[in-house]
Amino acid sequence: GSSSVESLDYEVIENYAYREEQAQRGKLYVGYSVVVKWFFALLIGIGTGLAAVFINISVENFAGWKFSLTFSIIQKSYFAGFLVYILINLILVFSSVYIITKFAPAAAGSGIPEIKGYLNGVDIHGILLFRTLIGKIFGSIGSVGGGLALGKEGPLVHTGACIASLLGQGGSTKYHLRYRWLQVFRSDRDRRDLVTCGCAAGVAAAFRAPVGGVLFALEEVTSWWRSQLMWRVFFTSAIVAVVVRSAMGWCKSGKCGHFGSGGFIIWDISDGQEDYSFEELLPMAVIGVIGGLLGALFNQLTLYMTSWRRNYLHKKGNRVKIIEACVISVITSVISFGLPLLRKCSPCPESDLDSGIECPRPPGMYGNYVNFYCSKDKEYNDLATIFFNTQDDAIRNLFSAKTIHEYSAQSLLTFLVMFYTLAVVTFGIAVPAGQFVPGIMIGSTYGRLVGMFVVNFYKKLNIEEGTYALLGAASFLGGSMRMTVSLCVIMVEITNNLKFLPLIMLVLLISKAVGDAFSEGLYEEQAHLRGVPLLESRPKYKMRQMTAKEACGAQKVVSLPRIIKVADVVSILRTNKHNGFPVIDHSRNGERLVIGLVLRSHLLVLLQSKVDFQHSPLPCDTRGGSKPISHSFSEFVKPASSKGLSIDDIHLSSDDMEMYIDLGPFLNPSPYVVPEDMSLSKVYNLFRQLGLRHIFVVPRASRVIGLITRKDLLIED
Amino acid sequence: GSSSVESLDYEVIENYAYREEQAQRGKLYVGYSVVVKWFFALLIGIGTGLAAVFINISVENFAGWKFSLTFSIIQKSYFAGFLVYILINLILVFSSVYIITKFAPAAAGSGIPEIKGYLNGVDIHGILLFRTLIGKIFGSIGSVGGGLALGKEGPLVHTGACIASLLGQGGSTKYHLRYRWLQVFRSDRDRRDLVTCGCAAGVAAAFRAPVGGVLFALEEVTSWWRSQLMWRVFFTSAIVAVVVRSAMGWCKSGKCGHFGSGGFIIWDISDGQEDYSFEELLPMAVIGVIGGLLGALFNQLTLYMTSWRRNYLHKKGNRVKIIEACVISVITSVISFGLPLLRKCSPCPESDLDSGIECPRPPGMYGNYVNFYCSKDKEYNDLATIFFNTQDDAIRNLFSAKTIHEYSAQSLLTFLVMFYTLAVVTFGIAVPAGQFVPGIMIGSTYGRLVGMFVVNFYKKLNIEEGTYALLGAASFLGGSMRMTVSLCVIMVEITNNLKFLPLIMLVLLISKAVGDAFSEGLYEEQAHLRGVPLLESRPKYKMRQMTAKEACGAQKVVSLPRIIKVADVVSILRTNKHNGFPVIDHSRNGERLVIGLVLRSHLLVLLQSKVDFQHSPLPCDTRGGSKPISHSFSEFVKPASSKGLSIDDIHLSSDDMEMYIDLGPFLNPSPYVVPEDMSLSKVYNLFRQLGLRHIFVVPRASRVIGLITRKDLLIED
Ligand SMILES: Nc1ncnc2c1ncn2[C@@H]1O[C@H](COP(=O)(O)OP(=O)(O)OP(=O)(O)O)[C@@H](O)[C@H]1O
Ligand SMILES: Nc1ncnc2c1ncn2[C@@H]1O[C@H](COP(=O)(O)OP(=O)(O)OP(=O)(O)O)[C@@H](O)[C@H]1O
Ligand SMILES: [Mg+2]
Ligand SMILES: [Mg+2]
Repeated sequence: GSSSVESLDYEVIENYAYREEQAQRGKLYVGYSVVVKWFFALLIGIGTGLAAVFINISVENFAGWKFSLTFSIIQKSYFAGFLVYILINLILVFSSVYIITKFAPAAAGSGIPEIKGYLNGVDIHGILLFRTLIGKIFGSIGSVGGGLALGKEGPLVHTGACIASLLGQGGSTKYHLRYRWLQVFRSDRDRRDLVTCGCAAGVAAAFRAPVGGVLFALEEVTSWWRSQLMWRVFFTSAIVAVVVRSAMGWCKSGKCGHFGSGGFIIWDISDGQEDYSFEELLPMAVIGVIGGLLGALFNQLTLYMTSWRRNYLHKKGNRVKIIEACVISVITSVISFGLPLLRKCSPCPESDLDSGIECPRPPGMYGNYVNFYCSKDKEYNDLATIFFNTQDDAIRNLFSAKTIHEYSAQSLLTFLVMFYTLAVVTFGIAVPAGQFVPGIMIGSTYGRLVGMFVVNFYKKLNIEEGTYALLGAASFLGGSMRMTVSLCVIMVEITNNLKFLPLIMLVLLISKAVGDAFSEGLYEEQAHLRGVPLLESRPKYKMRQMTAKEACGAQKVVSLPRIIKVADVVSILRTNKHNGFPVIDHSRNGERLVIGLVLRSHLLVLLQSKVDFQHSPLPCDTRGGSKPISHSFSEFVKPASSKGLSIDDIHLSSDDMEMYIDLGPFLNPSPYVVPEDMSLSKVYNLFRQLGLRHIFVVPRASRVIGLITRKDLLIED
Repeated sequence: GSSSVESLDYEVIENYAYREEQAQRGKLYVGYSVVVKWFFALLIGIGTGLAAVFINISVENFAGWKFSLTFSIIQKSYFAGFLVYILINLILVFSSVYIITKFAPAAAGSGIPEIKGYLNGVDIHGILLFRTLIGKIFGSIGSVGGGLALGKEGPLVHTGACIASLLGQGGSTKYHLRYRWLQVFRSDRDRRDLVTCGCAAGVAAAFRAPVGGVLFALEEVTSWWRSQLMWRVFFTSAIVAVVVRSAMGWCKSGKCGHFGSGGFIIWDISDGQEDYSFEELLPMAVIGVIGGLLGALFNQLTLYMTSWRRNYLHKKGNRVKIIEACVISVITSVISFGLPLLRKCSPCPESDLDSGIECPRPPGMYGNYVNFYCSKDKEYNDLATIFFNTQDDAIRNLFSAKTIHEYSAQSLLTFLVMFYTLAVVTFGIAVPAGQFVPGIMIGSTYGRLVGMFVVNFYKKLNIEEGTYALLGAASFLGGSMRMTVSLCVIMVEITNNLKFLPLIMLVLLISKAVGDAFSEGLYEEQAHLRGVPLLESRPKYKMRQMTAKEACGAQKVVSLPRIIKVADVVSILRTNKHNGFPVIDHSRNGERLVIGLVLRSHLLVLLQSKVDFQHSPLPCDTRGGSKPISHSFSEFVKPASSKGLSIDDIHLSSDDMEMYIDLGPFLNPSPYVVPEDMSLSKVYNLFRQLGLRHIFVVPRASRVIGLITRKDLLIED
């Protein structure tokens, strides 16, 4: 629930310790920190690239080995092959779900909603831990290798984000891997930038689509954006491309088993359809509409599934989660093995020596026309070609050109229904799971179905069914995830076919518009369900009629005086759960003044260290320098990967309780304020655009000291 | 200078009239305005697409006709051909510079710095007028058709922005083309969104690169960004692609003369180099460095040229501007005709029937190996192939693959030096001028030079010089304009070669980094020079140590009481140039209160209409409804395309002067405020991120009425 959720603070807390540190450091340090930031972008790129290569090598080898073993056994006995196939899948899925439930519960699912939440300013405990990273990597090897209807792309985004966050805090606290010199990233804001780089790196690595990665991070995950950041994210993506490409080059000679064959582009269809005519726009629009409908339906169904799981099934403990995953694994194996068995084989097309098409082929290998349970020699099983195969190959086959009439409508329809159901059911089990690849599979199946009708209907033109499969994939992703520009670029980068860009745009526009009419995007819905309170970029309509004062309610403000007794601090922190408290002081002429905001976490640090306790209730004059500062700014930095202190962890003697603290040096002296009757939509913009955590609602000012306009801000260094 | 510059206000002014209007309209109106926004995005796309097609048809026909005429004459006399060539160019350039100087001075140059300024919040008079649009379109036909060293891409961005802005205000005020029902865009903020769409449409149309257009608008021009806007911008770009594509399809049969031949992709090199080896990375990095250096040098030289022109040459009036442009036109013609004459022709390569290369060809037509001043039959002039040719064809020839050894190093070097010089000199003359195409020409020349050395050095590999030309083009643009992601995507979209994407990224990273070490980007520098006070996204380092109070200086604040005598308003407006005034009132118990901010432009509207003048100095109680409101919100909308009212335009009788105005209903009741000791970098962030115009600096509050946190903002409609 949202009770465990805290906000991040993207504002710099300019307290005394911070200003001291700033003053000490000077301008050179700014240069140093820029260098470190770039260095970290490099490291994130390398790390994510290597993680992606590792996952890919493992998955492709497990899957390849699984299919070749099964295929060699079914030469003798289909039943024995069936059992072996089920067993291997089961073992892989079991290992995945075991890792997740026992070791890294936060690594379940795709992780994108949580990362989106993090970048929106919501701190969800556990999503960026080292164990989550490990769980994500090994878990997704098991779940994807085990043939479930899910992908490894979402998890790679999460992996990238974890790597970025861990680097950002200088290693893992728990495993004693922290290095002092790496700790330049003190604020939530810097970490956010790193995590953005990590997300981009994840997509870049997953799809080998560097520009798509940048745009995904920009459009789908981040809530704030600066053009310098774009430039760094771009660099990270480029590094990922270099790393993955080098690894593929190294693996080309067969050093890495099944990995490394094929080009850099995952599903290259650059030799596909040459051109398209205006008549084709209608069926393409139809694909867009189908995509919007099926995508919105997918979101809705997975929403029900997930909330049902959360409320009933997963409450019963880890054992149920493990059993559930195993059951789904067995069902998936049975369907993907069994259904092709029921299918009659089709004769191979007349072999055209030029086209280099080989028919039939064994399953689990690069190429169309898979031979499975066919009685005659020159026959192939069209359902096995897509169902009893690795996902990558299935998609490649669905996208493939020059293979008109390869699939029967019946097979495609069977596959569509079964796989859609499997994808919905699988969504939300306790393993790392991405929705990109299943989405592409679903979309390209109905796309190809439409393509078949078009080929039959228009006859003349050189229409390729593969083109329609591609558009179908785009439409389903658009209808479900509601991305636009980034999806466009990703689709182009993974298929290497720029000619279809305008068509992809058209299809996406339609499917997104249709989808938006029914529901929110997949990630937003999942975030809502998980209690991640995302703030949209636009205020709600209702807010126009509300004022700031109305929004903050009638609750009395819990504020602290500047010099406060330790006992009072403890009791205030115990009796409420607020994370920020206004600090009120009296000026010399007795006037009350709001002098700043102090955070609960800072108060806890003060209570724990005790060095700032004083006997007298008089202010210590920090400005005069009479007292050396006893805290460095870094002590106040919230650790990214632990829950931080709680008031119950702190033990104070009764002597301590009688002492005082001067909060003056530790408060944020200038939080943003709004007058009480500002409309809430303006307050919302302020809060959302600047990434704030607390805003003070104050009475109208009595006078204006000055005005700041553009001219006043044109200061040169 | 910056004195003529005003700021835009991206904040909604929630005065009484606005709230009335909001209340009357309700939620349905929100839906209506969304529909209108999409409709406008559609119109902008169609308009910009058609404008681009018109410009392209004109330019290509003028240029094609020019070259074929010249070529037919030089069969008899080179001298006569020379004269005709010079004359045609001169006429075209003259018409362009005449239109600009006499009719639309704001249409000179590329317009991108100004649009960037507009989207950053600076209102420069005249840049978005109807006459500017007309001047831009016809001017760039003349200047590009006249063979100057400039392009039509920058002007197309400006054209798109003009179209968007004119639509946004419902037509041109001056030419009585306004329609009431189109006037839904009341605020600067809505206009800004439209202009962003227009920019994207411009790039999309110029390069036939829809995704590149979106990214250009995002990365290079806009300063604020929301993901809904991205979605609309994307739609506009898609429309442009459809329009341009349809027009090209329609023109294919030759209906539009020279236009419409060739594919949708401008410089298709998809049949170029297949792969690249690691050894090639070094020369590519060298290209990146050269690009950074030459790009930064270009920025610096053009900066000197422009400031010299502004301070000396162009002060002397329009005649000097016209003469200058004509002189440069003649010089350009002489060089582009004369230099190839001095060059010895080379023998045609052994014709390979398969490759379909024809040698020699007449100039001004699609294809390599131009025949110009060659004595023998099977010879071509390599310098004429790039110099005595249209820019599009020259670039296509430079990018072309399978034409190794077409150019001699000497020719390329000659062209590089001459064209670079011409581009620098031409920059800043009073015609519409883009820097994209000249940049691509310069870059691809040195890129091809490097490629020649690589071909000679590595020998074995199937290296194409054209690839290096492409990378050179990317590097020069990166070194001069400092774009990253958008440039990458544009380069891929204009050449249809995804394989080189990682290389383009590499080259851009290097050239931008090298360039950044020397100077700012081209557009930023030009904006500075023109006195457009751009606010960067990041506060300056110095601001961390300053407070808000220090920034606004010691100047006494000019504020107004709520009920004010007309004579006082007039005298205040006369005696200073401020655009915003705090309004102070006294509450019942005599306390002073800042009740809001009133804009000069609103005061002027009130003074002009006079309906709100009252005899008694007592507040009119608008809330009680005793007095009907006499103004609708639309009266306060600042016209985008005229300077607006000035105090000197308003004539008031002495009776009027003795009356009073109650400012209560007309002020913005809740401008953003900051406490006096907030650090200036935080104030900067507030100002910059929210796109404000005025911020009040106020004393610290005496109490906190409430706190607003994320939870308070999670309101559902
Ligand atoms: N110091 C305070 N005094 C009174 N009310 C407060 C105070 N701080 C927050 N609130 C109110 O309490 C409600 C719950 O806020 P909450 O305690 O979760 O804020 P927080 O914990 O400080 O911030 P977050 O949960 O976003 O990290 C909100 O409506 C807010 O207005
Ligand atoms: N009402 C005012 N009273 C006193 N000083 C002001 C007032 N308005 C602006 N200033 C100050 O005058 C200087 C010049 O501001 P300027 O008059 O150009 O602002 P503006 O015209 O209101 O806004 P802009 O020029 O950005 O449209 C600034 O330093 C600003 O702080
Ligand atoms: Mg809380
Ligand atoms: Mg001004």
